[in-house]
Amino acid sequence: MNRALLTALLALAAPALADEGMWTLNDFPADKLKAKYGFGPDKAWLDHVRLSSVRLAGGCSASLVSADGLVLTNHHCVRRCVEKLSTPKADYIAAGFYAKAEKDELKCQEFELNQLEAITDVTARLNAATRGAAPEKFFELQKQEMAKIEKECATSDEVRCDVVTLYRGGRYDLYQYRRFQDVRLVFAPEQAAAHFGGDPDNFNFPRYSFDASFLRVYGKDGKKLKFDHFLKFSPAGAREGDLTFVSGNPGGTNRTLTLSQLEFERDVRLPWLLSRIAEVRGTLNEFGKKSKEAARISNGNLMQIENSFKALRGRHAALADKAFFGTKVAEEQALRKKIEADAKLKPQFASAWSEMDKVVERQRQLYKDFMILEGGPGSELFGIARLLVRAADELPKANPERLKEYADARLPPMKQKIASNAPIYDDLEELTLAWGLTKLREELGADHPTVVALLGKQSPEALAKAAVKGSKLKDPKERQKLFDGGKAAIDASKDPMIALARAYDADARAIRKKYEDEIDGPVRKIGEVLAKARVAVRGAGEAPDATFTLRLNYGTVKGWSLGDKTVTPVTTLAGAFARHNGSEPFALPKSWLDAQKKLDGTTPYNFATDNDIIGGNSGSPVINKEGEVVGLIFDGNIHSLGGDYGYDGVLNRAVAVHSAGILAGLRTIYGATRIADELVPAAAPAGGK
Amino acid sequence: MNRALLTALLALAAPALADEGMWTLNDFPADKLKAKYGFGPDKAWLDHVRLSSVRLAGGCSASLVSADGLVLTNHHCVRRCVEKLSTPKADYIAAGFYAKAEKDELKCQEFELNQLEAITDVTARLNAATRGAAPEKFFELQKQEMAKIEKECATSDEVRCDVVTLYRGGRYDLYQYRRFQDVRLVFAPEQAAAHFGGDPDNFNFPRYSFDASFLRVYGKDGKKLKFDHFLKFSPAGAREGDLTFVSGNPGGTNRTLTLSQLEFERDVRLPWLLSRIAEVRGTLNEFGKKSKEAARISNGNLMQIENSFKALRGRHAALADKAFFGTKVAEEQALRKKIEADAKLKPQFASAWSEMDKVVERQRQLYKDFMILEGGPGSELFGIARLLVRAADELPKANPERLKEYADARLPPMKQKIASNAPIYDDLEELTLAWGLTKLREELGADHPTVVALLGKQSPEALAKAAVKGSKLKDPKERQKLFDGGKAAIDASKDPMIALARAYDADARAIRKKYEDEIDGPVRKIGEVLAKARVAVRGAGEAPDATFTLRLNYGTVKGWSLGDKTVTPVTTLAGAFARHNGSEPFALPKSWLDAQKKLDGTTPYNFATDNDIIGGNSGSPVINKEGEVVGLIFDGNIHSLGGDYGYDGVLNRAVAVHSAGILAGLRTIYGATRIADELVPAAAPAGGK
Repeated sequence: MNRALLTALLALAAPALADEGMWTLNDFPADKLKAKYGFGPDKAWLDHVRLSSVRLAGGCSASLVSADGLVLTNHHCVRRCVEKLSTPKADYIAAGFYAKAEKDELKCQEFELNQLEAITDVTARLNAATRGAAPEKFFELQKQEMAKIEKECATSDEVRCDVVTLYRGGRYDLYQYRRFQDVRLVFAPEQAAAHFGGDPDNFNFPRYSFDASFLRVYGKDGKKLKFDHFLKFSPAGAREGDLTFVSGNPGGTNRTLTLSQLEFERDVRLPWLLSRIAEVRGTLNEFGKKSKEAARISNGNLMQIENSFKALRGRHAALADKAFFGTKVAEEQALRKKIEADAKLKPQFASAWSEMDKVVERQRQLYKDFMILEGGPGSELFGIARLLVRAADELPKANPERLKEYADARLPPMKQKIASNAPIYDDLEELTLAWGLTKLREELGADHPTVVALLGKQSPEALAKAAVKGSKLKDPKERQKLFDGGKAAIDASKDPMIALARAYDADARAIRKKYEDEIDGPVRKIGEVLAKARVAVRGAGEAPDATFTLRLNYGTVKGWSLGDKTVTPVTTLAGAFARHNGSEPFALPKSWLDAQKKLDGTTPYNFATDNDIIGGNSGSPVINKEGEVVGLIFDGNIHSLGGDYGYDGVLNRAVAVHSAGILAGLRTIYGATRIADELVPAAAPAGGK
Repeated sequence: MNRALLTALLALAAPALADEGMWTLNDFPADKLKAKYGFGPDKAWLDHVRLSSVRLAGGCSASLVSADGLVLTNHHCVRRCVEKLSTPKADYIAAGFYAKAEKDELKCQEFELNQLEAITDVTARLNAATRGAAPEKFFELQKQEMAKIEKECATSDEVRCDVVTLYRGGRYDLYQYRRFQDVRLVFAPEQAAAHFGGDPDNFNFPRYSFDASFLRVYGKDGKKLKFDHFLKFSPAGAREGDLTFVSGNPGGTNRTLTLSQLEFERDVRLPWLLSRIAEVRGTLNEFGKKSKEAARISNGNLMQIENSFKALRGRHAALADKAFFGTKVAEEQALRKKIEADAKLKPQFASAWSEMDKVVERQRQLYKDFMILEGGPGSELFGIARLLVRAADELPKANPERLKEYADARLPPMKQKIASNAPIYDDLEELTLAWGLTKLREELGADHPTVVALLGKQSPEALAKAAVKGSKLKDPKERQKLFDGGKAAIDASKDPMIALARAYDADARAIRKKYEDEIDGPVRKIGEVLAKARVAVRGAGEAPDATFTLRLNYGTVKGWSLGDKTVTPVTTLAGAFARHNGSEPFALPKSWLDAQKKLDGTTPYNFATDNDIIGGNSGSPVINKEGEVVGLIFDGNIHSLGGDYGYDGVLNRAVAVHSAGILAGLRTIYGATRIADELVPAAAPAGGK
């Protein structure tokens, strides 16, 4: 790691060499790109890519790949849908899923897709709303103005509008999306192929995963839609050295945090999260051993947990590395030194860092209580109960006065959640809720008033069992009744899960308000100052930190070297068979073993590029200059994990499924001809012999 | 935490106020004590306390409390013995244990007690052995000399001799113990009483735990022994404000680490350990839910894991606290500044810190591989297999050439382990081994040569299952045969656990050698320089960091205040009944509920003192000026956890069971008259009405 980061250091010192930057689509550095690669996308190219890109609101990226609304994304992005459509008898996670005909395409519960239609700068409105505000009022005022702007924009449930904070307050843009809530599963491979290599290979390369799936978007009336913009699918795909674009929604980066904020990450937040996640991992892993059914209902959560653990551990390792942290120290010191030395800049900006230090000091005190109480004890049913309890309190208020997520423009996902009939499993609910209640007692102490009020003389396990067994919230009709009945219905409800959520709520709201007033508001206010300070010293032209909104970046298909080890950037189907050993997670499914002889082993399968991506980019198309899909992002290498805090062009790599590998799989392994033909209408070479 | 540590800061700035220091018995500051409290123990008092104190070699402290070898320690210190004596039908953990007659006292497997008979300064010999040694040779030379010294001293298996490194190399003392390996269980309460409050109350106060048990020491011939030195038991016990001594074996402190070493703790070691431990915690907790028997065989491990987690998290929190870490920065800077400013000291000492920085940088690179490979994958059977495999290689070598733990003077515990017929449970073994192999693959990567060699095409689970099921090492006779058969027997063995240990060993030894040469040796060499530097600047008269050897410290029975909360130092039996709510871990056992009316509720039960203790002190007697037992250390408060890195006299508290509470329990709850009479021959007031 140290050697790697020493290399990273050199890379950071020479930014011109590295293709850093998750660029917004309305501020893409086409000229810079043209100077380096001889190609700069024009507005039409950018608009086409933007409208062909879609976001899975739950946390992934995707792309439209046919005029008929076929959507390409990762298997791990649709895993929850596949799982919820499965039953003990029809387990599509294990067996895979293929809708032979359009009528067989099955609706995903609680899925939403967003297509970015317009971006509008609303910085002036936001600034006007908070001008002169005290730090502790800042959040509330900003939230109110955002709610107003979003409501004006969201003229129907099919329009989604989010005000996005860029540059941590340097700019506010209104993102207007077309919202799709009828999303259906078309194709998913077996988990064993999609997640081949499992946790050991996760965030590693070379790689051999068929982490690809297809969805289809339908209209509100349940009918098929026609799309003007979609990406053509390239049967040949990417080669080493090719220029590649990735269009997707990186979830978040923290490259412009101050040192005290980074120390908070390193010393407080990440260690706390890591040990929580590790405990859940152990719990779920052991839970899943009880029976095949226990494994089936919990493996999705386990996979997610393992992924988070590895990702956060990589982030922590980056901050714990003295050389890497040293670059952050040097960067901040250089910035502050220039400001201190400039008589004009100093009075505007110099105090911002020490102000932030004070806020972070307070954040250290409030963080755990906030996470525990406002985070809630976990469990799907508790989440639904809290949603109903809060909706009853919030919805009667004027729109801007509500908790952010209850503003009018934000209601469609809530309605979807209430109406969902996705299965909820008692065993897993009890486990999760009991664990959450145990942590509540552990973190706050057995004598904390909230703990005493909630648990009384009961153990967490007994309380969880009673609440899950006694609750009727698994029934969407029951939820709808409580939602429609409002405050009176909630107050009168005898449902034990509603009672639990009610009992939590006063303390949870109190710590949330404290946190928003004392942390979020001041951080946002100081964020605006720091953003201006950066521009004043370093000029504009840097990409903003990621915000789970559409970004485009560029790079090339490229391996890397570390010490005496060189990694080439493209793997083949033959490599997957070579890695197969018959023991999970290195066991290819039967479909692959049966098809082995028919496949051309030299077909490219997975590949690495130096595109600057991060979690949330999963499912993003890798696009060539011609705007064609040449691959499908599904991971990064181990060195990409520090990318949260700084991009290292020497070692940081994105990892994708190759378009030729996808086609070969569809045609030769899965016989998914309908989909292969929809992607590449004329039969094209697809890795078959 | 920040507020607490700000207070701690003030405390550290005024050391005269705080009774810091875990003093060696041959260097006790009696004069300093006399000046403050009007009482300074003389040599006879110190010798008496030393010879009345015993160490449980497995990691606890204890004291002789009768001429017939009765030993007082914590329940959690003998828990493993109680567990191993239990069966599904006679579960002494749940029901408690009381030997009504001497003949009913049951032998504890793998227990060893040590009584410290003599201390000899061997610094000159150690220094001579390593004079002029290169850092990478330092460890080996020192180890060889230590093995020689220990062998000369250990004239029989009943004499235990350890060279102890004090002041991280400032001084080396030879500790000569009388060793007892026939130790029998006399009395243990129910787990529900001993660990009342469970994990939530652990490291907290006020407290209501009967964490006390009794053992008896027997001679090598299995006959009772007579002791000249033992501590009298005080029926009245300690009161608020009383001067209290704690005589015991604090396991280790890190108060004199350099800043780079502390950063390593904060950024690498503790986060890594915490997430490992957290995962094991989740795993064991869920494992134990499978059945009553699964709970019975795993709860001891779970308790230990929960205790470690909370302890290490507290330590991490101390280092993560900017104010606390700031005191360590200030301390080191002050020391270095004085050295830099002194023309005589500078050439001797100034470079030591930067040399240490370089070693720690290397330690960051080697640490995980060392822990994973030399630590091994866990499981008792694997531990036994490795012991046998290594013994076959090591014992034929000359004594000083062997791995440290195979030197002649260190063999008795190994022989005890081989002969032990303590139960080993397949389920738990498989779980532990599979987990360890999974972590091996996770940490080193699926393509690491060791991983490939060990796992081949098998999953960790499959390999673990085969190794556990196929191994005969549960049988002590089989172990003895392999031990006696030496290298030839080991090489010829088809036992799959032996095979696994053999396959591990080359890589484990290689990383261990690297670690000893590149880390341990240099750290020890620089440690000697730093110790001298401290004395040169600050003078002698500081207590050395703890080393799991006998220490004596003093303090008073004392509560504390934090913010608007004041905690009084003594709880009562009535308080335990008030806290009882019927739900585990707040459920008192039936014996208590039955006895409630007979008990005097005002009897003191648990209490807090400001004695400077740490893990390893568990089971230490709390002693008054008269040399009587007034209490039994079993825990510290939450503020004591940072005590690893610095003592805070304002908030750091030791937590003990009160001698009056112990007597009341023995007489009135448990009817353990034989023991109560042995402690306090004349019937004395014992909390009975």
